[in-house]
Amino acid sequence: MPKLSEKARKLLEKPVIGHLVTLMPDGSPQVSPVWVDTDGEYLLVNTAEGRIKPRNVRNDPRVALSATDPDNEYTGILQIRGKVVEVTENGARDHIDKLAKKYLGKDKYPFHQPGDVRLILKIKPEHVSGGVPD
Amino acid sequence: MPKLSEKARKLLEKPVIGHLVTLMPDGSPQVSPVWVDTDGEYLLVNTAEGRIKPRNVRNDPRVALSATDPDNEYTGILQIRGKVVEVTENGARDHIDKLAKKYLGKDKYPFHQPGDVRLILKIKPEHVSGGVPD
Repeated sequence: MPKLSEKARKLLEKPVIGHLVTLMPDGSPQVSPVWVDTDGEYLLVNTAEGRIKPRNVRNDPRVALSATDPDNEYTGILQIRGKVVEVTENGARDHIDKLAKKYLGKDKYPFHQPGDVRLILKIKPEHVSGGVPD
Repeated sequence: MPKLSEKARKLLEKPVIGHLVTLMPDGSPQVSPVWVDTDGEYLLVNTAEGRIKPRNVRNDPRVALSATDPDNEYTGILQIRGKVVEVTENGARDHIDKLAKKYLGKDKYPFHQPGDVRLILKIKPEHVSGGVPD
């Protein structure tokens, strides 16, 4: 499996907005902005039970994500195609807090709703291009 | 057909990066950052002959696009699903110059390559949510 390049990992260390595509039941695409990070191998996106994204990826795991480097908007472009290999509650509450720290500078995610079940979408990258420019 | 809301049009007047999804021949999604504007009814994206996007949309016209308002990144979110109803060279050179003005402040698009055939992808929005926040 292709590893994330150093350039891709560097871009994902920044608080960049990823645009995550999932497929609707009829095969048409749906895309929305997400917080994203990586464990060095997989992309990790946090969502919640009942949302359109987990519903879609359970039906068809094929996804894509693009992002631009806010410091280099025209040359720092990341494009990934891959598959969701796991949808899990395990560690998802800690993970959304980690993302809140990265994106908002807060120790705890401030937007929890009662009854929310957080989920991690674990994405295996299959095609990767771009990242932080040289 | 759903009209673009006032909020959506206002966001598209800004030089926001759109993330445009097309479908690969196997139905998997591909997404990349694009310049985008609107004639008030359709979304207009400029590309060039030979690129992956025109190839994909001639095969399957279903697309999606998301963007965030740089002035309101968490509340100014635009999400569109729709179809490419036309791929045309007509007006595409003028259109890329118009986009260069919007995005770069330049009267002429500075990145033309010899032999480039510019194309407009004319996108009919079918589902629209978000835009500039109230």
